[in-house]
Order: sequence, then structure tokens, then C-alpha cells
Amino acid sequence: MAHDFRVWAPGRDRVELVLGARRLPMRRSGGGWWERTVEEAGPGTDYAYALDGGPPRPDPRSPCQPHGPHGPSRLVDHAAFGWSDDTWRGTPLPGAVLYELHVGTFSPDGTFDGAIERLPHLVELGVDAIELMPVAEFPGRRGWGYDGVALFAPHHAYGGPDGLKRLVDACHAHGLGVVLDVVYNHLGPSGNYLPEFGPYFTGRHSTNWGDAVNFDGPGSDEVRALVVDNALMWLRDYHCDGLRLDAVHAIADTSAVHVLERLAEEVAELAAHVRRPLFLIAESDLNDPRFVRSREAGGYGLDAAWADEWHHALHATLTGERSGYYTDFGPLGLLAKALRQAWVYDGAWSPHRGRAHGRSPAGLSGHRFVVCAQNHDQVGNRARGERSSVLMSEGRLRIAAALLLTAPFVPMLFQGEEWGATTPFQYFTDHEDPELGRAVSEGRRREFAAFGWEPEQVPDPQDPATFERSRLDWSERDKEAQAGLLAWHRELIALRRRIPALSDGRLERVRTDHDEDTGLLTVARGPVLVAVNLGATAR
Amino acid sequence: MAHDFRVWAPGRDRVELVLGARRLPMRRSGGGWWERTVEEAGPGTDYAYALDGGPPRPDPRSPCQPHGPHGPSRLVDHAAFGWSDDTWRGTPLPGAVLYELHVGTFSPDGTFDGAIERLPHLVELGVDAIELMPVAEFPGRRGWGYDGVALFAPHHAYGGPDGLKRLVDACHAHGLGVVLDVVYNHLGPSGNYLPEFGPYFTGRHSTNWGDAVNFDGPGSDEVRALVVDNALMWLRDYHCDGLRLDAVHAIADTSAVHVLERLAEEVAELAAHVRRPLFLIAESDLNDPRFVRSREAGGYGLDAAWADEWHHALHATLTGERSGYYTDFGPLGLLAKALRQAWVYDGAWSPHRGRAHGRSPAGLSGHRFVVCAQNHDQVGNRARGERSSVLMSEGRLRIAAALLLTAPFVPMLFQGEEWGATTPFQYFTDHEDPELGRAVSEGRRREFAAFGWEPEQVPDPQDPATFERSRLDWSERDKEAQAGLLAWHRELIALRRRIPALSDGRLERVRTDHDEDTGLLTVARGPVLVAVNLGATAR
Repeated sequence: MAHDFRVWAPGRDRVELVLGARRLPMRRSGGGWWERTVEEAGPGTDYAYALDGGPPRPDPRSPCQPHGPHGPSRLVDHAAFGWSDDTWRGTPLPGAVLYELHVGTFSPDGTFDGAIERLPHLVELGVDAIELMPVAEFPGRRGWGYDGVALFAPHHAYGGPDGLKRLVDACHAHGLGVVLDVVYNHLGPSGNYLPEFGPYFTGRHSTNWGDAVNFDGPGSDEVRALVVDNALMWLRDYHCDGLRLDAVHAIADTSAVHVLERLAEEVAELAAHVRRPLFLIAESDLNDPRFVRSREAGGYGLDAAWADEWHHALHATLTGERSGYYTDFGPLGLLAKALRQAWVYDGAWSPHRGRAHGRSPAGLSGHRFVVCAQNHDQVGNRARGERSSVLMSEGRLRIAAALLLTAPFVPMLFQGEEWGATTPFQYFTDHEDPELGRAVSEGRRREFAAFGWEPEQVPDPQDPATFERSRLDWSERDKEAQAGLLAWHRELIALRRRIPALSDGRLERVRTDHDEDTGLLTVARGPVLVAVNLGATAR
Repeated sequence: MAHDFRVWAPGRDRVELVLGARRLPMRRSGGGWWERTVEEAGPGTDYAYALDGGPPRPDPRSPCQPHGPHGPSRLVDHAAFGWSDDTWRGTPLPGAVLYELHVGTFSPDGTFDGAIERLPHLVELGVDAIELMPVAEFPGRRGWGYDGVALFAPHHAYGGPDGLKRLVDACHAHGLGVVLDVVYNHLGPSGNYLPEFGPYFTGRHSTNWGDAVNFDGPGSDEVRALVVDNALMWLRDYHCDGLRLDAVHAIADTSAVHVLERLAEEVAELAAHVRRPLFLIAESDLNDPRFVRSREAGGYGLDAAWADEWHHALHATLTGERSGYYTDFGPLGLLAKALRQAWVYDGAWSPHRGRAHGRSPAGLSGHRFVVCAQNHDQVGNRARGERSSVLMSEGRLRIAAALLLTAPFVPMLFQGEEWGATTPFQYFTDHEDPELGRAVSEGRRREFAAFGWEPEQVPDPQDPATFERSRLDWSERDKEAQAGLLAWHRELIALRRRIPALSDGRLERVRTDHDEDTGLLTVARGPVLVAVNLGATAR
């Protein structure tokens, strides 16, 4: 047993490896890297780094944080896991139906192992892959995951590295792929020690979360390498099939080779090496084809992008809501446009933004867009985290499902949507620092003013009851109304499997017709005509 | 049981369905199509069509020709086959190693079932997919397959439709993909009844084989549909993973949407429907990136192209041959160029052609090029069909294998190459018409004059001994010299699997160095340096 410890800390004069009570000086090895080989260290060894004599800090590339983001790191031997998915050859994104889930609330256990028990439900439903909300170590035991700070360490409360591997392995055994949500645009507000190690952030660009991650300033080569290595780790060592890149519009990079293009290139080569399809999905609200256009055509070569406008157009029509960004939606004609090309704002003037927005997606395949009728954001970023199930009639839920699952795009369901779960999905956190907890709660309430929601409606994210309330109630699934909706989803997915025209991504072949007055709308999908009545009168 | 017979015969006044001794008039159904439903017909029924009272002709879309290309067609129910490959999820082309084989000579039986028995050998070798030389019904029992005339019917002497399905199913059970060679640029000289049915050929363009297939003249919509439907059938109904498109430079099409682009588009949608990667490989000597560039970038979107120049550069260097097209090759510098970018003539002046040829492949991934040290053409189109094993030393065979299997491209082996089989692969036919047989033999001899080979060296293609001589001798495999070369191939493929840099397709990362005087050449492939001595002196 021996381990070569290596850490990048370019601006430091002294770096020590902390092993229990011992502090071992590390040696400079060029390019800002420090290293030290320790004979008695190996998988399971806990360690930290001390910078210029300061307190122990976790490794920026820590593979495991058994005691949370502030504690020591632990070495992991990825080769030691007993994989049983040798015959798994991956699942391509085109033609897939995704299922987004949050590990903490998906199952009663709220762990990776807890999720495994529910996989047979997903197989019966007929989806192709799960999409896990972020699992990188975040502060506390409860959280959506977007506050992750140890990007290489699966959350300890979910089951850590081995737990995630067991889940991926079980998914593959069930014929399900795994997409992992990863956050490269910011780090959480607590436990982010990266700035102490090096120039991981830059004031050259700013984001909603403050200074941007440094993808193009001095020292950015190593920051880019960290992100690329992180992505490759999930795909190679955890056998994931794809990644969902959070909010790429907040990844500021003026480099000639954008970090997302570099990432796409590296992932393509890894796919050739592991001999299975690997894919990258961007969350972006820029409506810019560049993200998903092939690299040969001057794009970044990501495989797909979330198209939230498809959701907005549908949601505004189904609920009549017009506040916040729903200002830009509502008319049936805009829904029809979304059904044809995912993006409504393709250069058109956006009242909500007060400017023209987006660019035409012409020439792109529908397989390049992930669409949904609900997702963690659209449900969870409502004041009370209400699902569509409590906002609209069962008939409208069925309409949403039909339009989603006959779409020329990549449809995605959100956990429990398939049976119309009535449990909310609210915003919850578990910050140890009471000041930070209070700040998050207050910020949340202010944010919702734009939608006209009252501050007192917003549950306290720090209250454990907010988390508990958001847990899926699986006993609901078998109730009559829910069972009917579940059967509807199953049938639609089965229909999509059976009729090639339904998953056909050629947008130029999608024809819609609608009447604003009667609320009738049709979508022609090859031999299938999807006809829905969104008017007040039965027809 | 009932079957709807449909046939396209736009210029005819009368079309009859021939069932045994009965002739049943068919009804016009628009667009040049004729149809008739027969209650008592179904899978296994033999049938033909008579045009304007003429003799019975096989169906242009016949799924089975149990008695060869001139006999009746037989209905097949593709859904009836008992597939066991439910868990097969395909095999992507990038990173793959292919293995070309000819069903008739690969195994002692010379059938699909005979090939199944040899699959364990391929699994041990470590290749990812077999590439079958064409199997569409051709005249006689012996042939390379490029004289196919019933494009939808797997050759009866190989085992027909069920035999091919058994082979594909067995390949998938062994973890092997299947690529099928299909010929859309011409039909064979005997048994081609398509011109009697409609404008399948056009004098607007001409090819080596006479009038071109009509992809852009009047009536070409149905010709294009036949080709697209044929390709989709192999991938959908026969579960093939990819197609190799023969000599696409002889597919003349001035349409705004080239038939190959249409094909790529349809195959991409089928891939989304069947949820596994499907790919198209073009054989082309045009060195034109358009074939493999993505459709978004203005290309046809094929997945890869054969790069014969890689072979030529290697072969000329290893053998010293300089006749025929080898005129253009020989210097180590040209081999080094091929090792870096597959195409040597990238706009450079080609002495053999007497003009500049090709275009730079810059920007394309190495995964877009299939390369080989031997293939059916390069071996079989020599006067005596000699393999490299009888043209060069074992050391040079090992050099060829090392350069091939560490290449940034998609390497392909030709049956028996892995053990240095000494059996030739000669050109053989089995034409019933003695005139045609004689014409083929004579044409063959004339063709070889360019290479300086004597006519008397060329074996008679019609002689059954020519075919027998070309059959692989599996007993050779265990001999000492052969076993050593086989182990060498296995080790190289295993190395390629283990070291990601070896299958990395980024051509800008390939560095070569060479010395024309000493014959030393190196290729840097990430951490691996491949060094070969092609000089006269050991070093």
C-alpha cells in the first residue's frame, strides 16, 4: 500500500499533508502542484491539506467526504468495486425517455440503496434512464444538491461512493441508464475551500452566485482540467451514461475552445474507449444553438439542451398563470410553436426580458432538446413547491402527458409525476450556520415577490418538515385516480416505443394546428394525430 | 392468412401476380404501384410478377429467393424469428475493431451457420464487430457478393433469411456487432430484372458497370425509397448494427438532398426508435470529407469512410510494389502522412491520376476512417489473390499489425489476417451463362495488365477450384508461426482496449517521425511510442 498525494496550490509557500495528528511537508513538483508519496496510505485513509500552516482543508479532488464537506477526505480505490454490468453497452440519448429524481426524497430511505428498491417501478413505467439531481457532497444531510462543494465525492448521507456505484450497477441490471446532474457554474456557499488552494474563481465575470468559476483567467488551465476530470470520473469510474450540466449560461468562458467544447471532445474519446454511448445535456436558457451544434459545424458538440420554454408554454396554457416568466407565454399559438421547435423565443421579442431573445433552432434535430411538463425547478421553485397535480384537472394532466410523450424531443418526467403525486417538492437546505440558513430563507422569499407570491407562503428551507413534506408518498400510487394516471403514462410510453414516428426528431415534419377561440390543438406526428381540447367546452 | 402484394411498375399496362400456375391481375393504386390482396397467401408463399403478359419475374423487393435470382420470390414474416438478443444495445463504431469476412469462404461450410461456429475465435481475438461481404442474392452458389441482384434477399446458398438472422443473433450473444456490406451503386450482370419494372437505371450518368442507378432522374423517388427501405430492413428486421456502402463514388446523385444524406437521416431516426447505435460506412476513393461530415456542417452525415490510401501507403512501403495505383505511394513520408490523417491525397498532386486529388480531412475525427492492412479488395484484386503473408516477412506482418491496431482510426482485419493465413483470396464467380463467365474471366485478365501481371497468372473465376483455394484453412491457425502472429494480434487489440490514447481519434495529437534513409519510423500515441524499422538493417 502506498499513495501519491498530489494537490494544486500554486500561490502557496508551504503545503502539508495532514494524516491524523501528523503534518507531512509536501514537495513542489512544478506548475503549482505539490506532491508526497506515503507508503502506509491507501484506500480508506483519511487525509487533508494544510496551506501555509493553516487549518486542515479537504482535498479539492476528494473522492469521499465521510463526515461532510468540512471534514477530512478519504482515499477511494475505484477499481475495487465489484461491478456486475459487464454486458451493459449504454443507452443512447436519442429516443430516450428520462426520469428525474432526487435521491433524498425519492424513496423512504432517501439513499442510493433506497432508490434501488424502486427501480422495478421505473422499468414497468418504461423509461430509459434516470437523471439524478446532484449528488456531490453538499453541507448538511438535506438539500437539492446544487450547493455541492466537493465535486468528486458522492454525498455521504446518500451512501457515498459505493452507494452510488451500487445504484448505477442496479440501474444497468434493470436496463436503465444513469444521467447525473453536475454543477460546474458555481460552488455552494458553505464548505467551498477551493479559493484557498488556487484561482478557482475570477472577478472577471460574475454570476447569480457571485464570482464566476475561472475558466479563462490566469491559472484556468487547472480549473478546466478539474472540471473535465470530474466529468470523466462519473462516466468512467461510476459507469454513468450521461451528465446534465447545470446552468451552462453561467459558465463564462471567452477561451477560443470553450470548456464545454473541450468537455464534449474528451467525453467523445472516453466513449470510444469504453465502447458505449456517453452524452452531455446542458441546462441553458440562452436558446443558442451553439451549445448543441456539432463541433464540425462550429458548435460545442453537447448532445442536448434542456428547453424550459417548452414547459413554460405548456404550463402557462394549462394553468392560466401569467406572472414572472410566464408573462412570455399563454397563447395557444406559442404552445404550438414550442411543440414544433422547443424554443418559443428564437429571436422573437420577449416581453419578460424586454429584448429579443434566442435564435432559430432550424436544422437541429428534436433529439437535441430535453423537454418536460414538470421538473425539480419548475415545481420546486414555486413558493410552495406545488406539483401540477394540485394546479390542474386530471384531464389537463393527461393532456400534458400526451403532448410530452408524443413530442419529437427527449421527454423527461419528474419523480411521481407519472402518478400525479400530490406531495410538493419544496426547497430545503440543512446549513449548519444559522446566519446562512436565515439568509437563504429570506433570499428565497424575496425572489418570489416577482411571481406575486406572499412571503408567508414560502416554507422555511431550513425546517426539516419542509424536507419531509417533499418526500414521495409511494402509497398514493395505488389509489384510483393516481393508478389511472400512471396507466396513462405507461401506455403513452409504450405507444412511443411502438410507433417510430413518435420519437422521430425531424422537426420539419411536425405539423400543428390550433384555434385560440375554441382551445383545440392538434399535432401531427406521422400517422398519429394528437388532438387536445384546452378550451372551456367539451367537444 | 392474407397478404397485400404491392409492386411498382409505372410504365406497364398490365401486371399480374403469378402464384404457381395462376396469373392474377393486379390493380393500379397510383404512383405507378400495383396491388392485390390474396387471402390464402402468407409467409412461405412463392410468387412472381408478370409484366404485360411476359414471363414471371421475381419481386424487386423479394425478401427471399430460394432458387436463386431467376426463380420465384418467397414471402417472409420477419416478426416470426425467435430473437434472443433483447439485451443487445448495439456497438458504437468509434473505438471499434472490425473484422471483414466472406461467408462462403470463412468456414468449411461456407454458410451463415458455419460462421457461427467460428465466433468464439473472434471473441478471443477481441474484435468488436464482423463486417460481412454482401449477402444479397447473387447468381450461382459462389461469388464475392458484389453481383447481387435481389437486394432484399439473403443468399439462399448461405442459408437465406433465417440463416442470416441466426448469425446476427449469435453474434450479439457473443457480444459482437454485425456490419453488412450493401451495394447500391450497381446491380450484377445476371438476374437484374429491375429495368423491366421501372426506371431503376439512368443513362444520365455512367459508371464502371454501365448505366448508373437512377437516384436523380424521373421516377427516382421510388428508386431512392427502395434503397432506403433496403438499408432500414437490414438494420431493423435483421438487427444489423451498421452497413458498409459499396463504392459510393459510383452513386451519382445531383439531388439537393443526396440519397446518402437521406439514408443517414433515416438511419438516425431508426436508431432513436430501436434505441441502439446504428452506423453507415462508405467505401469511397474521392477523399472528400463531405461524406462523413455531419449534416449540420453541410455533410451527408455518414459515420465513417474506408480510407484505402492508408492501406496503399503501408503496402507500398512494406512490399516495395510500385505498379498500378501504388505508383502514388512508397516513400516513408507518405506512410507517415497516412498514419497521421488517413488520406495521403488531400489536394496533393497524384501521379497515378495525373491530377490533384482529394481535400484535407482537417477537423474530422480519426473515428471517421476505416483503415486496414488487408481487405477483400486489396488481396482479392491481385492477379493471384495473394495475402500479405506470402508477400512479406513475419516481421513486416507484425509491423503492419502494430501500425494498424495503434491507429487513431477504426482498424479492420480481413478473415485469417490475424494468423497470417497463406490461403489466397481470389476472384470467383458462378455464372450459369458460359458467355458471361468467359467475359468476366477475360475482363479480369485485361484489368491486371496495368499492374504488370501476366494474364496466365490470373485464375479462372468460374473454375470451382478458384473458390475452393480461397477458403480459409483453419488448421493453419495452430501452426507455430501462425500461432505467434495470432497472439501478436490478440495482444495488440488488448493493448488498444487498455490504453485510452490508442483509440483516441484526435488526429492533431498524432505525431510521427521518420527517416527515409534508415527506414525508421515512430508514431507517438499519447504515452505510447510505436517504433518500427522498415530499413534493410536491424537496429
